[in-house]
Amino acid sequence: MTGIQRPPYVPPDFTSESLRRAPGARTVACEADGVLPEGFFATTNLPSYVKGEDGLWAMPREPRMDGCLVRESDGTWWVREGRRVKRGDRVVVGHAEDGSDGVLVHATGFDYGEGVAGDFHFMSSQVSREKPIDYGQLARMLVDERRREGYVVWVTGPALVHSRARDNLVWFIRHGFVQALLAGNAVAAHDIEAAVVGTTLGMTSAGAPTEGGHSAHMRAINAVRRAGSIPAAVRSGLIPSGIMHACVIEEVPFVLCGSIRDDGPLPNVITDAVEAQDAMRAHTVKATMAVMVATALHSIAVGNMLPAYYEDPERGLMELPTICVDASEFLVSKLKDRGTHQAVGVVTNAQDFMSILRSAVEEEMS
Amino acid sequence: MTGIQRPPYVPPDFTSESLRRAPGARTVACEADGVLPEGFFATTNLPSYVKGEDGLWAMPREPRMDGCLVRESDGTWWVREGRRVKRGDRVVVGHAEDGSDGVLVHATGFDYGEGVAGDFHFMSSQVSREKPIDYGQLARMLVDERRREGYVVWVTGPALVHSRARDNLVWFIRHGFVQALLAGNAVAAHDIEAAVVGTTLGMTSAGAPTEGGHSAHMRAINAVRRAGSIPAAVRSGLIPSGIMHACVIEEVPFVLCGSIRDDGPLPNVITDAVEAQDAMRAHTVKATMAVMVATALHSIAVGNMLPAYYEDPERGLMELPTICVDASEFLVSKLKDRGTHQAVGVVTNAQDFMSILRSAVEEEMS
Amino acid sequence: MTGIQRPPYVPPDFTSESLRRAPGARTVACEADGVLPEGFFATTNLPSYVKGEDGLWAMPREPRMDGCLVRESDGTWWVREGRRVKRGDRVVVGHAEDGSDGVLVHATGFDYGEGVAGDFHFMSSQVSREKPIDYGQLARMLVDERRREGYVVWVTGPALVHSRARDNLVWFIRHGFVQALLAGNAVAAHDIEAAVVGTTLGMTSAGAPTEGGHSAHMRAINAVRRAGSIPAAVRSGLIPSGIMHACVIEEVPFVLCGSIRDDGPLPNVITDAVEAQDAMRAHTVKATMAVMVATALHSIAVGNMLPAYYEDPERGLMELPTICVDASEFLVSKLKDRGTHQAVGVVTNAQDFMSILRSAVEEEMS
Amino acid sequence: MTGIQRPPYVPPDFTSESLRRAPGARTVACEADGVLPEGFFATTNLPSYVKGEDGLWAMPREPRMDGCLVRESDGTWWVREGRRVKRGDRVVVGHAEDGSDGVLVHATGFDYGEGVAGDFHFMSSQVSREKPIDYGQLARMLVDERRREGYVVWVTGPALVHSRARDNLVWFIRHGFVQALLAGNAVAAHDIEAAVVGTTLGMTSAGAPTEGGHSAHMRAINAVRRAGSIPAAVRSGLIPSGIMHACVIEEVPFVLCGSIRDDGPLPNVITDAVEAQDAMRAHTVKATMAVMVATALHSIAVGNMLPAYYEDPERGLMELPTICVDASEFLVSKLKDRGTHQAVGVVTNAQDFMSILRSAVEEEMS
Repeated sequence: MTGIQRPPYVPPDFTSESLRRAPGARTVACEADGVLPEGFFATTNLPSYVKGEDGLWAMPREPRMDGCLVRESDGTWWVREGRRVKRGDRVVVGHAEDGSDGVLVHATGFDYGEGVAGDFHFMSSQVSREKPIDYGQLARMLVDERRREGYVVWVTGPALVHSRARDNLVWFIRHGFVQALLAGNAVAAHDIEAAVVGTTLGMTSAGAPTEGGHSAHMRAINAVRRAGSIPAAVRSGLIPSGIMHACVIEEVPFVLCGSIRDDGPLPNVITDAVEAQDAMRAHTVKATMAVMVATALHSIAVGNMLPAYYEDPERGLMELPTICVDASEFLVSKLKDRGTHQAVGVVTNAQDFMSILRSAVEEEMS
Repeated sequence: MTGIQRPPYVPPDFTSESLRRAPGARTVACEADGVLPEGFFATTNLPSYVKGEDGLWAMPREPRMDGCLVRESDGTWWVREGRRVKRGDRVVVGHAEDGSDGVLVHATGFDYGEGVAGDFHFMSSQVSREKPIDYGQLARMLVDERRREGYVVWVTGPALVHSRARDNLVWFIRHGFVQALLAGNAVAAHDIEAAVVGTTLGMTSAGAPTEGGHSAHMRAINAVRRAGSIPAAVRSGLIPSGIMHACVIEEVPFVLCGSIRDDGPLPNVITDAVEAQDAMRAHTVKATMAVMVATALHSIAVGNMLPAYYEDPERGLMELPTICVDASEFLVSKLKDRGTHQAVGVVTNAQDFMSILRSAVEEEMS
Repeated sequence: MTGIQRPPYVPPDFTSESLRRAPGARTVACEADGVLPEGFFATTNLPSYVKGEDGLWAMPREPRMDGCLVRESDGTWWVREGRRVKRGDRVVVGHAEDGSDGVLVHATGFDYGEGVAGDFHFMSSQVSREKPIDYGQLARMLVDERRREGYVVWVTGPALVHSRARDNLVWFIRHGFVQALLAGNAVAAHDIEAAVVGTTLGMTSAGAPTEGGHSAHMRAINAVRRAGSIPAAVRSGLIPSGIMHACVIEEVPFVLCGSIRDDGPLPNVITDAVEAQDAMRAHTVKATMAVMVATALHSIAVGNMLPAYYEDPERGLMELPTICVDASEFLVSKLKDRGTHQAVGVVTNAQDFMSILRSAVEEEMS
Repeated sequence: MTGIQRPPYVPPDFTSESLRRAPGARTVACEADGVLPEGFFATTNLPSYVKGEDGLWAMPREPRMDGCLVRESDGTWWVREGRRVKRGDRVVVGHAEDGSDGVLVHATGFDYGEGVAGDFHFMSSQVSREKPIDYGQLARMLVDERRREGYVVWVTGPALVHSRARDNLVWFIRHGFVQALLAGNAVAAHDIEAAVVGTTLGMTSAGAPTEGGHSAHMRAINAVRRAGSIPAAVRSGLIPSGIMHACVIEEVPFVLCGSIRDDGPLPNVITDAVEAQDAMRAHTVKATMAVMVATALHSIAVGNMLPAYYEDPERGLMELPTICVDASEFLVSKLKDRGTHQAVGVVTNAQDFMSILRSAVEEEMS
């Protein structure tokens, strides 16, 4: 599983002629709220450096792709979404990523060295159902994150609730492996339907449809709407078990973002997409690892916000491990095609992934 | 392509003993805004009838699945989303769908009669890439809808813009085959990127990535934000061509709904999911046909709202033809698994579908 | 997992007027070897009965689909492939499957009764990655087959060797859950490459390509060719472990059929397709259960030969449980589209399937 | 569509120190028929050179991957499958591919130069349904091949016959764009079923199953068996139209290779896999272009045999354009994972591909 080993970061050589001679980054003031100046620099998720007027290279805070670079009045640099800039904000302009305009994108800091020799290979594709999955390594990473008090963000789709993976996700929440849960209305609705009615979309846990089952999720949603909120429904006993129950009891923060296909929605779902992005990003800026299971929409959304690295207080810059689990190769390729190059794909069924990962973590812990 | 022929509708036999003896539907008042009474009746997308106090069976207005039945003070019945009910609204309760509680779901009105004789068949799956696509029949349906002034709703994903299908969709808009376009921020952003910069997600129309291409969509979005709106950007000449341009010029209404994975977003994108659903439903209640191309999110969203039938002033109740085009069988199965039984699947590439469909329609028109 | 419960078989009502009055089956002699008479009756995999001159209905032996019905001189009926008939063989003619021509295909003998009431359901598709997998039930079936000395045929593709499922398949072989292994050259070649060189197609068990790895399978094949046969290579110590090793040691019969894409091939591979079919059918006629993992070619091949039922000495006619595991829904749909209606699909990764199934069987045995 | 432009070939620099000093290739005699010496050199599909005793570098004839290098008594070098060597044949040994053992694999001869600058890109995956298909370029290549009297090998699966692509393939055969057709029993059986009975696997051209349709292909096969051969059945009028008819009439050679899943098989099907490989390779050694449509088995088989280049009498060494069309990204990735790096993937439906390609070729010709 290429990509989850963690090489030491090699910073740029700032003593090189070209970087020493590079000018400071040029900024232009925004003319209106939410509108960037012509020629703005568009950020990537890779380690980046901006040269200040003092001639020093600094990394901007809260990195993500598809943002701009804003200089605050105290001289610090921030990555910000275009819609969040205010009139008068100083935004970096320039296209060059090699430092010659005062911004350097350092793509080779986590270089894995040369591959194997020779030019003709089999099995060199990056994502394939034919590649083995190293659950032991994944388990060691999760246990290591917990020990070091990392911040593991889980991004999950409803297939994880339809199938029997629900109990396993509860187990990970209860045992401290989940620091934030990012999902949509459907995950919570199916989970609560299972807790309240015993089915998911009217399907039993054995996979059979039930009489009148098509309304089960509507009844579950309505009951929570009556209770006022998910935490209230947990505390009242209406929701006695499951993923949302575990999050509330274990005080694991969750963000449920609304979408155009939602029924209900449940209370606590943030129906405004921009507001929901801000709520999710409050977690991605803290992330030290991301696990995405069976959701195209939310995996790509979180991939958009997620830096390819994070700063560890003791070990310095680290690549941010990003695991993406889906039943087809297509999602992981799509995620990479949208810039989340560090994603490691696992092509399998969500239920089976959760089951084996839990066994591997239990073994690693014993 | 089983499913797009249009059989005559056979209404229920209201003179039958059981339906004559059935009680009127029972209603209970809502206790709070957006909260339904215990035991509410959950609607389907099939032709349904409610028995009033006058003993008459009437079809509720604005049918959709996953709604409730509300009786207005004038005695009319409406299907409404639970979140839209107000305190005091009279909502139907009861689970039976056979009329015995005063509500009848009539699933067999569009019955296609017996299939072929014998019990052992090959090639009887409903959706498969191995099945032929009858483009001629699709073309005749579209031409027929235009002649009868039907209301064809198109639901499209960004693959349609990435690939070269864009020009073909413009052609359909310009020639009167599109009465409403339902999509997300990405379709408009890629379309406008193509119009303004000449790439989609930085990829040329020949499929090659370009230098600095990762910021092209951000620059296009920023330019429209500066212009204030998509129509303003069209009128100013900033957007000289493409899908959004055609919609504005031809006055075809569009709904762009926001999602958690949006960059920008563009002006005119409705970022609130609930508000966006209402905007989409304003079109689905008028639909006489739906064409869904290369989008899981929006196809399922529209499938949720779309009745399986519509009332034609001359021909009476008609099945609502719903074409769902995707590169894999999975989406259509998923759509059917979420209740859109009438969907007819076409398993192909969006670009090729649009190209051949246009040729077939041109031939049909000539 | 709808479909693997075992209902009692309900035979046809031979006392019915139509079956009593039906004529005996009419036979015509073949004019040439391998050529059937005009209008021959084509068999299905469903329970079938032929009426003899004595007026009695009998089930033909060795049922399969796409065969013909031959009457031997002793009056017994056999299902045979067209290519195997000889000049002068008496072959049944007629098209009717309802008994009126003396042949009855009884499709409803394993009827599962009515489904749930109502006509509008979610999640009613037959094969979907969103459906839960009941590993406990699969495990009980396997343990039950072993107890009753059933004949479980495994059909496997190379994905099972590429990934880490190899050890688990060995475990199933060693513990008596495999009565025959039907596969191709690739399964054996990769398995032996892993045993001899330590890679599969030059990929390490961690999924990385190796230097010169593209020739590893060729060297493994060459070594076995030098040894003369797979059993000889096992006995000489050349093949010290793995699937083929386990088959040889445990005396589990295997059929390796050649294909156009084979490298080598290995000794023991039957390169003639017709001969290989005969070798495989020698096992399918004995089968009481079939497990197909990650192979389109061989699953469909075996599906073609496999009856949908078998005769149990104690319990009478039983449905033949057929489990088909693949990473996509498409294969199972394709299998059903080619007549293997009884197939139950499991949409997951082969590695994960084997791992969880083994755990479930171990639990069931403890 | 990256990969089908044709760059000039840049041969190795044989004047370099390392290549001048390299020893001649060392050969060892085979001890037995079909068994290679320990340490044999395994070929790739890339341009390769062997150094003779005379100190000259020569390209071996009939290149393919997974073969060995044999020196004939006249000093010429040949690539040969291991199973075809005879006792006493002189086979090259050595692992190095950089010339230091006397064999040079020249992977960079068709180098496409640097890609775009910068390290962060979107849409850089090699195969995706989201990438545009340049049918115009494909059409120009086909027309150009015909003009230059190239040898275009078509490899096709039965999806091409199930769907309506059949007429379009006939058109390509009739118009001189097909120099050889490589397929399996199923393509011919479905094609002949369509010609004789009017269905494919009992499905009408509108995609509906027919009564008794499951036996239609068996009746078609039986009729051809009675006729003795496919050409005889064409000449007798039994097969009045379709792909096989066109091949016979236009004298386009075809190879039908048997497989374990074949019904029948038809006469002319080569049931022995090794013999069928030899028959196919007789065409691949002449190929100047390959078009593979909707078949995993045969695409990978042909990919195994197909060099990545060919020698054009006028233009020198040319990359061998290899187009692989399938409904999913997986097949093309798999093909590349098995060494056919030059394959260009087109992710679409076979029917639509053939329809649009024909239109594009007709336009190119007009």
